[in-house]
Order: sequence, then structure tokens, then C-alpha cells
Amino acid sequence: MKKLINNAAATMVPDALAGLAAAHPGLNVDTVNTVVTRAAVPRGKVALISGGGSGHEPLHAGFIGPGMLDAACPGEIFTSPVPDQMHAAAKAVDSGAGVVFIVPNYTGDVLNFELAAEMAAADGIAVETVLVDDDVAVRDSAFTAGRRGTGATVFVEKIAGAVAEQGATLTEVAEAARAVNAASRSFAVALTPCTTPAAGRPGFDLPEDEMEVGAGIHGEPGRGRVKVCPAGEIATSMVEAICSDMPPRPGEHAIVLLNGMGATPLIELYVLYGTVAVRLAERGVTIARNLVGDYVTSLDMAGASLSVCYADDRMLSLWDAPVNTPALRWGI
Amino acid sequence: MKKLINNAAATMVPDALAGLAAAHPGLNVDTVNTVVTRAAVPRGKVALISGGGSGHEPLHAGFIGPGMLDAACPGEIFTSPVPDQMHAAAKAVDSGAGVVFIVPNYTGDVLNFELAAEMAAADGIAVETVLVDDDVAVRDSAFTAGRRGTGATVFVEKIAGAVAEQGATLTEVAEAARAVNAASRSFAVALTPCTTPAAGRPGFDLPEDEMEVGAGIHGEPGRGRVKVCPAGEIATSMVEAICSDMPPRPGEHAIVLLNGMGATPLIELYVLYGTVAVRLAERGVTIARNLVGDYVTSLDMAGASLSVCYADDRMLSLWDAPVNTPALRWGI
Repeated sequence: MKKLINNAAATMVPDALAGLAAAHPGLNVDTVNTVVTRAAVPRGKVALISGGGSGHEPLHAGFIGPGMLDAACPGEIFTSPVPDQMHAAAKAVDSGAGVVFIVPNYTGDVLNFELAAEMAAADGIAVETVLVDDDVAVRDSAFTAGRRGTGATVFVEKIAGAVAEQGATLTEVAEAARAVNAASRSFAVALTPCTTPAAGRPGFDLPEDEMEVGAGIHGEPGRGRVKVCPAGEIATSMVEAICSDMPPRPGEHAIVLLNGMGATPLIELYVLYGTVAVRLAERGVTIARNLVGDYVTSLDMAGASLSVCYADDRMLSLWDAPVNTPALRWGI
Repeated sequence: MKKLINNAAATMVPDALAGLAAAHPGLNVDTVNTVVTRAAVPRGKVALISGGGSGHEPLHAGFIGPGMLDAACPGEIFTSPVPDQMHAAAKAVDSGAGVVFIVPNYTGDVLNFELAAEMAAADGIAVETVLVDDDVAVRDSAFTAGRRGTGATVFVEKIAGAVAEQGATLTEVAEAARAVNAASRSFAVALTPCTTPAAGRPGFDLPEDEMEVGAGIHGEPGRGRVKVCPAGEIATSMVEAICSDMPPRPGEHAIVLLNGMGATPLIELYVLYGTVAVRLAERGVTIARNLVGDYVTSLDMAGASLSVCYADDRMLSLWDAPVNTPALRWGI
């Protein structure tokens, strides 16, 4: 294992948070509670909070800033944050309008955010929880009841963040977030496993000529292993998986995220994107907006995920609204 | 080798360019000449052109757009583009004010850009060529006379791009570009080799417990191989290499790029950045702006490079000017 870490794997998350704080003055890092917040949350704005295990950067802390999240709770690598972190985050960024917990569906995270919601409610903080469950690969798994939450988290955080920035109520922000999740689907392939620093070796084996189809963002099993095939076939199968789960309506417009898992060269993502665009066009889907790059990663895993949000005009307009975070920035 | 490519390694660059064109309507891809241009170059603006081998994405095509490059010539993977590409690019984007060739110092690229400059001059296009040679690791190598050109290319393209956008003359744009290069230094470490699709196996061997210190962006040898050490020590040695080559003046401000080589998890870059920031502060350098992420990559190489530009107020202001490219975007 070769990793850019300090003396112990155990300090990786705090060490990275120190770097995050140094790089981004718009973020506050609370090292006692392991919570990252937007330096200045406007008074009266509904606050958006997300979190999950580390190792998926820039998710979630890289999406904190005007127009997107107000706080994130980074857990240890691939490990849910604890309720105390989420509770501390809620207290830090609530300014009376309430908070929305955006929770990618993994059982540990879901249970911990539930406890945190109770703790926050006991403090008089109004909480709405929005589950993200976009991954069509598996219905249930050892890690989730229902679908896993993956790339659509970026769509939910961006669009709900824009709604909150406009002064919407807690209910309105939560409803917008749920609408985005309902309109979004994802599908991933993993070419290689990833190695957590604590384990020091790959989390699973993947033969040199095989890939995991429908993999989760920690390398969880998906629909099975097949021989590695040309990028065009992979792109076709990703579009097929998504569109068969949620067929596009006539004239459908979409926001598309073609996401690298951490060790995928950008040139490969563009090769894949070429066919994704052709296949979606064949199904009558107009790609109105897109992101190509590493947004929801899995440490040093090679592979890619495709996320599609069937977006109406309002969602597109909210997507275009100004945002200023470490990983997404435009209009500011 | 597992890569997201289509049936043959030979089609990787055109396949990726098809994806680039699909993803970014602000770019035009000329598939005949293998040239990527900004969809609309303002009349009378000095045009900026760069190029080099593919495999370093988002460099260079990912930096085309308002406020940065007007054209890029992607070569085959790790192979210089040919003079005809550069000549075609000059003809495509020159609107009478001339073109600046921004050339990271690799011998093949330098020779080909020289030929292209002659071809363009024969067409009556005024050309200035700016060499980028920021890598302090080695003075000469099998690939370069003088220092290699690496991460500072991002600084040069961004700042000279802003100068050109303001309506400066050809001489002024070239002078600004040279000033940025003169104020910039870089240093890299490679943890793993990278694999070109055509070769199908790693370009060099690197034992499981060693790293290449001072590596080039194709994995060229640097100052030697040492045992992998903690990130903090790596960061310290990077800062030392840069600051001993170009000592900071009192009150120095800097733009810093901490760049991943393609397969480096973002969380590891932030771990590294934490110590980079501390070490630069100890030397009296204020990091005024920074980028942390993958900007000048080496396919699937793991490792990182640090680039530092000692920037005066004018450079900082030009850095902050609006830019709208696939890989860098703000203010628009």
C-alpha cells in the first residue's frame, strides 16, 4: 500500500481536515466535533447538512458553501459519522429556520442521522431528513435496506442548496430535495478494488480481466462480475440500467454526472461520456447539463458511475444558480 | 491493464475528444486536424494556444474557454502533437492580433511548436512562443534541454488568458506569460508508474516500498528513489526543493497548485496540503490562492506535484478574473 498519509492511518481524517481548512477559508473545521461548516450561514436560511464516511471526497465537505451545503460530518474512512457529529453540525448551522439532513442510503448513516434528528429536535431544532437512494444496481444489500445512495447526492445537495439560498421554508427545501432524488438514478462499474489505509490491502479481489457491474461506492457487490469490455459497451449498459429502471418521457431533459471513482484517468471518463451521450440521445434524452470528473469517489478505486436526473425547467434553473464550494463553483 | 477504452488503444484520443465535444458545447472539436478550439474567439483578441501529448487531462483542452486558452492541440498519449495541428489551431483562432504558443518544455513539443510558428508566420500570423519550464527536479534530461514544464502551465494559461481577454497586445500577453513562468516552480513525487493503453503495462517499475522523488509527468526519473515516507515529510521536501531553488522574498504571496497525478485520492492531497501550508507559512509565504485536485495528470499514476507561483498583486487580480473552462471556472 502506498498512500500519502502521515504516521498512522488513524489520523488520516483529521490530517485531511487540517488541509481542507488551510485550503478553503470559506470553511470552518471544528476539530473537536469533527464537523465542517460554512464560515457564514445567512441568518434565517434553512441549513443543509450531509455526511457519511470519508474516502469519497469531494463528497461531502467539498460541497459546502454558498448555494449548496452548510455543514458536513465526515466519518472515519468508509464509516458512518456518529450522531454527536450530526447533532453538533445542526446546532452550529441552524439559525431558526431548521435543518435538512441529506442522507445517502447506507444503513449505518441512516440510523445515526435518525438519532441525531431526535437529539436536534430535543434542542428545539426543526429537522427534515431526505434519503438519497439512486443506485439501481441492487434493491437491498448487506449495507442497505432499499437502494444505495450514490451520485445523485450531488444533484440533491446542489438543487436543494439553491432552493434554501432563495429563502424557501424547511418543508419546501426538503420537498425539492426529495423531488430531485425521485428523478435521479445511478449505476456504477468498478475496475479495481480500493484500499483503505487501515486495512492496508484491497478490500476485495477483482481478477485482472474482470469488472464488478453495479458496484457500490465502497466496492460492494453489484449485479455480478463480467469480463472487462470496451468502454462503449460499458456506457451502453449503464444507460440501459438507468433507463430501464426509470424510462425517459418524451422530450426528457437531464442533468448527467459521469463520475470517476478516484483512480480513473479523466481521458477515460471522456471516452465513456462519448457513448453515454449517444445512447441517451437515442432514447430521446437531451443532456441539458453535465459534470464529468471525480465527485463521489471511492479512495483509489478505478471505475465510473453514471447518474442521471430527469430535470424540469425549475430544476435546471436551480442547478444553474450560483454556487461557491471547493468542488463546484460557478456564477460567483 | 484495465482501462475504459474502446476496441483499440489507437482510437483513445479521438474517442475522448468526441466525449469532450459532447460534454462541452463551448468547445469546437476539429476531428480532421485534431484541434480543439473555443467556440467563439472574440475578434481582435490575442489567441492563446497550447498543446502536448494526451494523458494529462484536463491539461490542455480542459482549459479552453473565456479567460484562458483559445485552442489546444492534443497529441497521441504522451506524444507531442505535430506541427500541422498547431498550425491549424493558429489559423483557426487568430483574428489578426496574433497568437501565443504556450509550450511546456519537452523537446519534441518545443521543436514542433517552432516549426508551427514558422508555418504560421508564412501565413502572416504573428506568433510569440512562451516556454514553461518550472520543474526544479532536474536540469536536463533525456526528454528536455533545461527544466521540464509541468504544473506552472496552469498558472501561465490562466493569467496570460486573463491578460489577453482584457485586450492586451501580443507582446503584452507573451510578457505576462513569461513573467508567470519566471515566478513559478514545481516539484513532484510519483508513488506508482502509469500505464499507457498502447503499451498495456506500466511504463517503469517502482518497488512496492519506494517512490520516485522529482518525477516528471510521464514518470521520467527525477532525483532518485527513496522509501515511501509519511506525507508530512514528502510535503516538506517538496517545499524545500522549490524554496531552495527560488527563495521567497519577505512578505511573499503565492498561488499554490497541489496537483494529483491521476490516481491519487483527493483525501490524500488534502493530507499533503496541510503540511505544505504549514511549511510555506514557516518560510514567510502567504498562500493567497490555491488549487487542490487533478489538473496536470499522468494517466493512472499515483503521486502529486506542488507548484508555487510567487504572485504580485497584478497576477493575483488576473488569477481572480472570470474564467469559464471545463476544468477551471469562476466569476461566470
